[in-house]
Amino acid sequence: MKIKHHIVLLLTFIGLITAVEVKAQEHPSLILTKSGVEKIRKELGTVPLFDATLKNVQAEVDAEIELGIDTPIPKDFSGGYTHEKHKRNFLMMQKAGVLFQILQDEKYAVYVRDMLFQYEAMYKDLPVHPQTRSYARGKLFWQCLNDSNWLVYTSQAYDCIYDWLSKKERKKLEKNLFKPFADFISIENPQFFNRVHNHSTWGNAAVGMIALVMDDAELLERALYGLKDDGLPAGAKDNDGGLIREEGQQTGFLANIDEPFSPDGYYTEGPYYQRYAMYPFLVFAEALQNVKPELKIFEHKNGVLLKSVTALLNLTDADGKFFPLNDGQKGMSYYSRELVTAVDIAYYYGGLNPQLLSIAAKQQSVLLDDSGLEVALAIRDGKVKPFQKKSINLTDGADGKQGGVGVLRSGNEDFTLVFKYAAQGLSHGHYDKLSYSLYEKGNEVIQDYGLARFVNIEQKGGGNYLKENKTWAKQSIAHNTVIQNETSHFSGKYEIGSKHHSDLNFKDFSNEDFQIISAKETNAYPGTELNRTLVMMNLKGSDKPIVIDLMKVVSNTQNQYDFPFYFMGQVVNTNFNYVTENSLKPLGTKNGYQHLWLEAKGKSSEEINQFSFLNKEVFYTISTASQKNDELLFTRIGANDPEFNLRRDAGYMIRRNAKNTVFASIIEPHGSYSHVSEFSVDSKSHIENLKVVHDDENYTAVKITTVDKEQHLIIISNNKDKNSKEHTLIINDKEYNWKGSYHYSIIK
Amino acid sequence: MKIKHHIVLLLTFIGLITAVEVKAQEHPSLILTKSGVEKIRKELGTVPLFDATLKNVQAEVDAEIELGIDTPIPKDFSGGYTHEKHKRNFLMMQKAGVLFQILQDEKYAVYVRDMLFQYEAMYKDLPVHPQTRSYARGKLFWQCLNDSNWLVYTSQAYDCIYDWLSKKERKKLEKNLFKPFADFISIENPQFFNRVHNHSTWGNAAVGMIALVMDDAELLERALYGLKDDGLPAGAKDNDGGLIREEGQQTGFLANIDEPFSPDGYYTEGPYYQRYAMYPFLVFAEALQNVKPELKIFEHKNGVLLKSVTALLNLTDADGKFFPLNDGQKGMSYYSRELVTAVDIAYYYGGLNPQLLSIAAKQQSVLLDDSGLEVALAIRDGKVKPFQKKSINLTDGADGKQGGVGVLRSGNEDFTLVFKYAAQGLSHGHYDKLSYSLYEKGNEVIQDYGLARFVNIEQKGGGNYLKENKTWAKQSIAHNTVIQNETSHFSGKYEIGSKHHSDLNFKDFSNEDFQIISAKETNAYPGTELNRTLVMMNLKGSDKPIVIDLMKVVSNTQNQYDFPFYFMGQVVNTNFNYVTENSLKPLGTKNGYQHLWLEAKGKSSEEINQFSFLNKEVFYTISTASQKNDELLFTRIGANDPEFNLRRDAGYMIRRNAKNTVFASIIEPHGSYSHVSEFSVDSKSHIENLKVVHDDENYTAVKITTVDKEQHLIIISNNKDKNSKEHTLIINDKEYNWKGSYHYSIIK
Repeated sequence: MKIKHHIVLLLTFIGLITAVEVKAQEHPSLILTKSGVEKIRKELGTVPLFDATLKNVQAEVDAEIELGIDTPIPKDFSGGYTHEKHKRNFLMMQKAGVLFQILQDEKYAVYVRDMLFQYEAMYKDLPVHPQTRSYARGKLFWQCLNDSNWLVYTSQAYDCIYDWLSKKERKKLEKNLFKPFADFISIENPQFFNRVHNHSTWGNAAVGMIALVMDDAELLERALYGLKDDGLPAGAKDNDGGLIREEGQQTGFLANIDEPFSPDGYYTEGPYYQRYAMYPFLVFAEALQNVKPELKIFEHKNGVLLKSVTALLNLTDADGKFFPLNDGQKGMSYYSRELVTAVDIAYYYGGLNPQLLSIAAKQQSVLLDDSGLEVALAIRDGKVKPFQKKSINLTDGADGKQGGVGVLRSGNEDFTLVFKYAAQGLSHGHYDKLSYSLYEKGNEVIQDYGLARFVNIEQKGGGNYLKENKTWAKQSIAHNTVIQNETSHFSGKYEIGSKHHSDLNFKDFSNEDFQIISAKETNAYPGTELNRTLVMMNLKGSDKPIVIDLMKVVSNTQNQYDFPFYFMGQVVNTNFNYVTENSLKPLGTKNGYQHLWLEAKGKSSEEINQFSFLNKEVFYTISTASQKNDELLFTRIGANDPEFNLRRDAGYMIRRNAKNTVFASIIEPHGSYSHVSEFSVDSKSHIENLKVVHDDENYTAVKITTVDKEQHLIIISNNKDKNSKEHTLIINDKEYNWKGSYHYSIIK
Repeated sequence: MKIKHHIVLLLTFIGLITAVEVKAQEHPSLILTKSGVEKIRKELGTVPLFDATLKNVQAEVDAEIELGIDTPIPKDFSGGYTHEKHKRNFLMMQKAGVLFQILQDEKYAVYVRDMLFQYEAMYKDLPVHPQTRSYARGKLFWQCLNDSNWLVYTSQAYDCIYDWLSKKERKKLEKNLFKPFADFISIENPQFFNRVHNHSTWGNAAVGMIALVMDDAELLERALYGLKDDGLPAGAKDNDGGLIREEGQQTGFLANIDEPFSPDGYYTEGPYYQRYAMYPFLVFAEALQNVKPELKIFEHKNGVLLKSVTALLNLTDADGKFFPLNDGQKGMSYYSRELVTAVDIAYYYGGLNPQLLSIAAKQQSVLLDDSGLEVALAIRDGKVKPFQKKSINLTDGADGKQGGVGVLRSGNEDFTLVFKYAAQGLSHGHYDKLSYSLYEKGNEVIQDYGLARFVNIEQKGGGNYLKENKTWAKQSIAHNTVIQNETSHFSGKYEIGSKHHSDLNFKDFSNEDFQIISAKETNAYPGTELNRTLVMMNLKGSDKPIVIDLMKVVSNTQNQYDFPFYFMGQVVNTNFNYVTENSLKPLGTKNGYQHLWLEAKGKSSEEINQFSFLNKEVFYTISTASQKNDELLFTRIGANDPEFNLRRDAGYMIRRNAKNTVFASIIEPHGSYSHVSEFSVDSKSHIENLKVVHDDENYTAVKITTVDKEQHLIIISNNKDKNSKEHTLIINDKEYNWKGSYHYSIIK
């Protein structure tokens, strides 16, 4: 990932900053503006959503003021008292600052001032945090990251009471608290500040926002372009195993926009971290827009910051929960405070898209600033339109050429298939090339495990990443993809994985009844090429789509391939025989296999192996074209888990010894069960057979036969270069002709 | 259970029936009445809930008529096509009959008639059902039970088109279908018809309802009083292991009201089966009330049928789901069609209690008859009042002297504790004396496993009881109670269990901040007496109640006691050390122990053993006063489960070797976690210590110390006979005086 236009931009920006410096700065100007406050005060009492948010915030802050101020000596990890208290403090200061401006009640200014001076008194002699786990220890918190959070929020509070404070007070705060604070998280921690990572984004925004309030051009430059000479060795790593530094790496806020975002707005670490980073990205951008509009930050890289909000909203299930690609905590959703910020700012600065209003309306909360007011006014005035999620393909990589993520949707988000063929995703990436997950509405059918961490729950490893994140969650076997010889993709090595990415073969979402996407991975296992094609298609007479999954494996060598499905629900039945184990043993000893109990083992007996399960009152069947010696394993997560850090979720897995092979499967929802009516409807699969009828270098073809004896043929062109050509293939004496990447027809 | 007034009633009833026979009967008269239909037709279009229900039913029946009639040759178990089809047929006929009356559109009458004649043509030569599992095989279905369902519904359909049919048609149907059908499920299957059981209730109602339509006094007498001479041997059993016949057993519909219902309306099989039986109980009662009002059926046994509806509604969690006491499928709730019937009939015939309307409003559906109209009118007219669920104690046994079930509630159903100290519960009973389960709102915190069955899912053992129901679900170790020497209560023997019941010691729900209930079991383990006292209490400064659980065990011998908690959620941490197993083995070989994997084992190290878990964003801690050699086991259900019939749920268990002992525990909800804000609040227990400070024949006392150093003392009087007396006890040189069953105070 290399950016070449930086130097030019740099020169341009320095010129602009210098030009702006002569103008006396007014306060507040960061997030709230003087004119914005006037408008807000005029509309108070007439904008239901804004008024409701204000009332909630006021109640919360009033209760907090009642409790009194506490700034304890830092001691704990996340989840512990001192951590949670300092976190609460900065959140409350930011809110109190806003309340002071909007309500013009001095008690809020007093609260912010008193707390700031307690921090000021404490900070100058504060050593680094006693917990030593982080590669960049903070002072208030165990890592600089959280210290940066503090400064991003506190800058806003300071901006709100800036004019109310005396010059002497400001001078004292800036000299003893803000300037040293900004220096600590940047100059003194270049390994944190000077990289391309969500951590640095927070650091850059923190330094940049306090710079804007203090009108400190040197700090602002540091924030935007990074430290010039950080003395960091190339190849250094953080405590999550992430690379800190590549040779020739650009740094600073702009580099953090340029590199991790693809032109489509996909953030390479994945949606969970995009959500986390959205706040500093957007709130600092908003501040820049307000204080330095001449930077045109929202137009940077073709407006990628605003595009990224739409991309992120598209990376949610029907309930608004983010797909847990890479390290992602399940349950995190567009109801989070970061997304309230993102949606409001994207609405206000991104052309007033009325679809965003429907998300804001669901969030039931707005920012207490100009953008939030605008959103609330628009909702009040009935401008809301539903946010339309359709099938979408998002490229990955700064240049959009490092693979991507495809999301296939059917109906009104009734079914959602998430296909990952992206780059590594920096230090939060998982080794799961060509993996996927499947949702029915907001329910997981085939799950992505997500991360192994209980964020902010102190008793669980300080609320930080657990060792099982590395030994299980990141490993290939934890995902719905193919695993060769019980080793992870790229041998589970970040240095290798981060050099590569998968590539799209083709996609076609133009027909809702037959959506297809195909991608290739050639580096996960040297000497082996993986091609996965996923189809979401509606069978006639069925009210739900099926997913057809064709994983073609071509290798130089004979290998053991494991092909797991992490299904959610309870086993209903199988068409093959299996035997459960009398005692459970781990399936392997390393690469994640040590965390799987083997519950049962079956042998392929038919042409097609079928396994049905029941989840949340819906039946599903996985049908796989079988080979004679296929083994069918039922697994359970949780072996070698000495502190119960892993969920006891189930897996179903096909194990096959082969050189070249095709795993052809259908995942099929059908029927329903009600625990109230006790009606069991349509509980059996509609698939009678699934057969790979052709497979060579050029073409792979499967035939699906339904119980109604309808036959469907799908042919994939394996040679991407010839996709625009005319193709002819004879299967069972019948000739098929088509143009393009694939052929689909109903035969017989 | 013996009823002595039957003979007197019998004579009275025979007189009445004879008297009524002279009156020419009008039709419909069973559920719909001629005058009711008139009223309904007059109100059509003005009663939203009734109109909506009617519209739904009409759409459903119209679609079914469109499909055409199919009465396949019986072949399948529940879940299979022929079973589900015949089931659908009777439900549709009943609805079509109602539509004919209300809409006066002949197509519905034609549909019912044509289907009836298909059944008529088929029935006379129909052999018993080919599936042989049942102790009483039906003809249309694999068991007479389902045949009876058919007749209960079909009688209503017949009643609706009775006048529309020609006399000749009626004669043919009655001669070839209804009369032989009624005889088959009664005379030809006395082992089904002539017992006290929910099966027989359906059989009795079926025969009784067709009797009322056909005006057949002999059949009606059979329905009400059973077969006089059934030739059944005492001691015969059904295929669920239930006793068919006791010596001198009364039978028939009235006996089925008299015996299984306690005077409080608790049904001894438990709420799941009460729900199932409610339909024939109430619909036949309604029919009797309409056709034979002089029987005053709703006043029978002090109006127990109507009382039972209130009892049943009180046996639900905050979401309306029934507590799965004994055999109960989880998820079944007051949204079921049986409860629509129950609520509407109870409202109409039981004094128009406006609280029932709030349940009907939630159900969003009413009966399409006089009672449903009345409910819908009352809702339309704004008469709804919230249904108030409070703490309640329901006696078990025909005379109310066979133990009971206590439900302790806190707040607005925020916490619900269900304590079972009842009788065996007939053939669906579990061996779980003095067990309990705990809910926060509608979420299980400490669960009762329920049954091991996938009702109507054919692939799972024909939708019938699975063998794991007997080997796991019924066993004591599957419940939250004490298990001695790895054997179940009463050695898991129905003959023994059904002779005994637990007994209430005392209860006091008068103070919502301190609710207490205590019961005794002396027969589960001969030579061992179990006394369990449960307290739901609010600690000052806490917004949620804690549950204090004192299980006192007194035995003649030294024993191993296992004391499990089937907690829901994931382990957060413990204050004791434990070691997880490298391979999992079953905890035992029989009595349910063969189904538990041992996941980890710990040793007691402190005065108090504490274990915290997280469930649905709430933290909970179980604190137990420990003894030196206590073992702490983590278990997982699912061993020896060759067809994945069991859920992989977790257990936590204290294992103690002792003769006499007290298991003193606190189950404490605290704090919260949000996956969206990622705030972890109040994640640690507020309990510092829990100590048994006194224990002898007369008194057991525990002292609770909170982290705020507040000390709470609870003393239980163990001698029930002295409960009304004054008590004095010296503990640690301090004298305590109180009157009654218990003492509670805050000390120091």
